Amino acid sequence: MSYQIPFNKPYLTGKEAHYMYDAVYTGKISGNGKYTQLCQAFLKERYGFGKCLLTTSCTDALEMAAILINIQPGDEVIMPSYTFVSTANAFILRGAVIVFADSRKDHPGMDESSIEKLITPKTKAIVPVHYAGVACDMDLIMSLADKYNLFVIEDAAQAIDSFYTGKDGKKKALGSIGHLAAFSFHETKNIISGEGGMLAVNDPQFMARAEIIWEKGTNRSAFFRGEVDKYGWVDMGSSFLPSEIVAAFLWAQLENLDDIQKKRAEHWNVYHNQLKEWANKEKISLPGLPGFATNNAHMFFIVCSDLSQRTAIIDKLKQSGILAVFHYLSLHNSPFYKDKHDGRELPQTDHYSDCLLRLPMYYELTTKQIELITNTMMK
Amino acid sequence: MSYQIPFNKPYLTGKEAHYMYDAVYTGKISGNGKYTQLCQAFLKERYGFGKCLLTTSCTDALEMAAILINIQPGDEVIMPSYTFVSTANAFILRGAVIVFADSRKDHPGMDESSIEKLITPKTKAIVPVHYAGVACDMDLIMSLADKYNLFVIEDAAQAIDSFYTGKDGKKKALGSIGHLAAFSFHETKNIISGEGGMLAVNDPQFMARAEIIWEKGTNRSAFFRGEVDKYGWVDMGSSFLPSEIVAAFLWAQLENLDDIQKKRAEHWNVYHNQLKEWANKEKISLPGLPGFATNNAHMFFIVCSDLSQRTAIIDKLKQSGILAVFHYLSLHNSPFYKDKHDGRELPQTDHYSDCLLRLPMYYELTTKQIELITNTMMK
Repeated sequence: MSYQIPFNKPYLTGKEAHYMYDAVYTGKISGNGKYTQLCQAFLKERYGFGKCLLTTSCTDALEMAAILINIQPGDEVIMPSYTFVSTANAFILRGAVIVFADSRKDHPGMDESSIEKLITPKTKAIVPVHYAGVACDMDLIMSLADKYNLFVIEDAAQAIDSFYTGKDGKKKALGSIGHLAAFSFHETKNIISGEGGMLAVNDPQFMARAEIIWEKGTNRSAFFRGEVDKYGWVDMGSSFLPSEIVAAFLWAQLENLDDIQKKRAEHWNVYHNQLKEWANKEKISLPGLPGFATNNAHMFFIVCSDLSQRTAIIDKLKQSGILAVFHYLSLHNSPFYKDKHDGRELPQTDHYSDCLLRLPMYYELTTKQIELITNTMMK
Repeated sequence: MSYQIPFNKPYLTGKEAHYMYDAVYTGKISGNGKYTQLCQAFLKERYGFGKCLLTTSCTDALEMAAILINIQPGDEVIMPSYTFVSTANAFILRGAVIVFADSRKDHPGMDESSIEKLITPKTKAIVPVHYAGVACDMDLIMSLADKYNLFVIEDAAQAIDSFYTGKDGKKKALGSIGHLAAFSFHETKNIISGEGGMLAVNDPQFMARAEIIWEKGTNRSAFFRGEVDKYGWVDMGSSFLPSEIVAAFLWAQLENLDDIQKKRAEHWNVYHNQLKEWANKEKISLPGLPGFATNNAHMFFIVCSDLSQRTAIIDKLKQSGILAVFHYLSLHNSPFYKDKHDGRELPQTDHYSDCLLRLPMYYELTTKQIELITNTMMK
């Protein structure tokens, strides 16, 4: 079925093809060329990340993080159950046991207050997922990490250009706070390259090894900087770096980041203004924003009061050629993990699985289209 | 330093940018779109692979293979020491112990006759690497696999469009014989997409799971075929699929595969004819071809009689602005693995590490340039 208004439409700023051409004709199309370095330098500078390494996906960035913190079979990793499978898979691949936390009542993000009682002597890391680009309470999470000597890996897949203001009053970019952070540039994100991602390495202890793991376990980068006189196999690793043509595409997006963010914020505000009275009346929740968080307008979602209400809204929109979609199924109840989960009920997670609905959100949406969507929902 | 004749120059057939544009403007740039499917269908059809899945690199295809055969910590995998780090890393990441085989006296490929005595009750797989696109003796390797119940994963990174003729007289494409096979489309290969690769799945027992692991451990592909009514997390997995823009680039290459192969073969033959008498006199080996193998002209290499002879040739070429390069350092002697290796001497591997030299090889080379190279070497 083809929709009059799809759920997502990848936005092209206009220079993607130009930069891809440029990469192609300069003859360097494997990874870590000019565009990779432009993207990495831009993101590091703009958001204060320690070191940036582009990857072929956010999944791959999470896998690098799992290798870097040296996950061993049986190590426990705490993360929300309401997240994408890759958050968990990256650690499962290293033999970790996933300990799923429930979501907050007021937001699909992990309930930070539930984390401490999940920590055991086997816990190695906490993986906060900044759902919809909305910050988790990083002061609280980082203080737990300090107290119990854990690593924090921010799953910032949806969180580009979003911020957290801590108790010290300083506003920090999401992805710059944890020891490591993973971003996505999948075509459904604010800034895209088809498939793509990035690892931000904030803890200096990981910087040298991150580069080695990224370069297939070799010290090739150090060799090209003249730090060693030949390069060889020094560690485990994989091929995490994307083609230059992917980085070239991404560069065209990053050059237009402010414009993209401004437009998405406008759309988000139109949705919110249109729906707030109706939502209140229908007992539907609109996304709230904790005082410490900013809104990067990655997503506009509503939380229905039950599954049947959500199904009715999806159907109504569908009849008008509009695609609205639910999101994650609870990972703790998944075919793969339900027998491995420790059996705790995670009622908020199940609630968001059943009741959360995402509305179309992309650059080229018009106010008229958003009004059509909201009017269709409300009629 | 910039070279008059580089070692490699990525070749563009002319339609890469056009297809990338097309992918971009149709609005589907994440993985598994039209171009991914075109490439997969073409390669399956042309070479008789069981099932093809594009990946972001050959490394990733090897990692998929390691997951598919269910490598467990302590499992042993037999492979040559004279290979790229990824051949080993893919299995190291799953906890395998690598048992390195020596190379053949007449070719850098693994000495097939040495494999059987390396097999133990812990052996899980053999990974033949078709060095320079020249087939290993697959009849022998497959019969060992049958006898000892092992899996064979062909590292066909360099072996696109190359063939093996077994005792039954049938000519089979490399990558179509083992249970699984991994290809590379890195910019240094015959057919390129910057970074890129493919897993060929020949054993039907792996086909359904390969698709799941490729799609991040979800049964998304089955869902889109209507085989299940919702999709979820059913297995471990990763994000192995490349952007459609990478697949679009690859498609332009595949459309010109015959032309590319013809041109490279011509270059290869010019090298061989120019150098054969001189090589004989200088006690330098030119690449031989076992009766069961074909030559896909991936590489033209020579094997010097010692390191000083190789260094002298590299220097002589460098002075004329020509870049010739050695290849792998023995993995069993690497900083990462030397303490894990079982201590066997692998003299042929060390010999190729010290003495093998690769000459410039790319589509746009001219006969004149090749003659300049060979004359420089011989003077």
